[in-house]
Amino acid sequence: MKGMDNLVPKKRILEAAVSLFAQKGFAAVGVREIAAEAGVNIAMISYYFEGKVGILKDILEEFFDRYSLVFEGVDDESKAPEECVRDLIHNLINFVRKNTDLTMVSYNELPLEIPEIADLKAKRITATIQKISPLIRRMELDPQDTFLIAVVGPGLISTIFTNFRFRPVLKRVFKFKFDDSYYERYSETIATLFLNGIKGLIAEKKRQERRKK
Amino acid sequence: MKGMDNLVPKKRILEAAVSLFAQKGFAAVGVREIAAEAGVNIAMISYYFEGKVGILKDILEEFFDRYSLVFEGVDDESKAPEECVRDLIHNLINFVRKNTDLTMVSYNELPLEIPEIADLKAKRITATIQKISPLIRRMELDPQDTFLIAVVGPGLISTIFTNFRFRPVLKRVFKFKFDDSYYERYSETIATLFLNGIKGLIAEKKRQERRKK
Repeated sequence: MKGMDNLVPKKRILEAAVSLFAQKGFAAVGVREIAAEAGVNIAMISYYFEGKVGILKDILEEFFDRYSLVFEGVDDESKAPEECVRDLIHNLINFVRKNTDLTMVSYNELPLEIPEIADLKAKRITATIQKISPLIRRMELDPQDTFLIAVVGPGLISTIFTNFRFRPVLKRVFKFKFDDSYYERYSETIATLFLNGIKGLIAEKKRQERRKK
Repeated sequence: MKGMDNLVPKKRILEAAVSLFAQKGFAAVGVREIAAEAGVNIAMISYYFEGKVGILKDILEEFFDRYSLVFEGVDDESKAPEECVRDLIHNLINFVRKNTDLTMVSYNELPLEIPEIADLKAKRITATIQKISPLIRRMELDPQDTFLIAVVGPGLISTIFTNFRFRPVLKRVFKFKFDDSYYERYSETIATLFLNGIKGLIAEKKRQERRKK
């Protein structure tokens, strides 16, 4: 990897692993390959990490550290909640553009066989939901209504992440140029889709509550 | 694998591969392991398939064969288009419940490194979009408006598929029981979210067209 010579070995290993996992998938890459790509002796990997799963855990922590910054101050009370959601979506898309490999690795690896990875993800996602709770409340949704949160949150995130994940297929089916103006329009469209969708869910919930009375 | 003894070897290989790929991911599974799981000699795999990628291609064809049936007759003109979309979402969720492993394998494997797999997916997805075009038209969306189609379609699909894909994480963050009543409510909620979202996109588009005049 170019430009990695000045990094400390641990960081070089992580960057090499992110790049290789993104290209080939976690399962297809061995520690030997990571060491070669990072230009370090393979013993370094055992020195810094508990094997390949240890590297993946560090990658996920790095991802969530950066990802959680996107949700920092998401509820700006000087703005309408809809505007805050629009800004959040815009910032999320920019985040994935800037951290594509890191995001794809964190999103792609299958948590099925590694309980400690699923635990880590669950803990960090729960923290993210707590950060966004005040905004959810201002949108007249109930943060305790885990059902709606569990539909809307992962729905929004997977919609955005999948746009990057299936880029090779999207490029073949639709002939877009993935440039700044594409992302601006994409960001506005996703915001309109989800804001109107959420409004519809709130209206439907109120209708049901009225019917119960 | 139980109950596979009566199947022809080719089908046994495919079923074993689906099950193993779903558990461990495509990259982590070798043909030797597939042959053992299927209870066939490894030579059988070369006889029926062009290696592991050949197996994956057959799995994808099988997935798309079944998946495309969900879109058959999706535009029932005796019903309001909104009702057709609601039925489609309901049927899609049922489809994934019944074909979870097959769907996850088809959805999870990374198309990045295998152009022929991305080609296959692009071809079959394009065919699906054509099937759904009359319904899109009735919803007052323009099937030629590839931008909106490319946002709404993959957004809806990834929202549904991700609900299954991240089951281990979802189970940890939210304490749902994934039973019939969960799926009924889930299906209604996704339909409300996307139908209102699409309505919002159509209204926004009309506003923009009026402004241009």
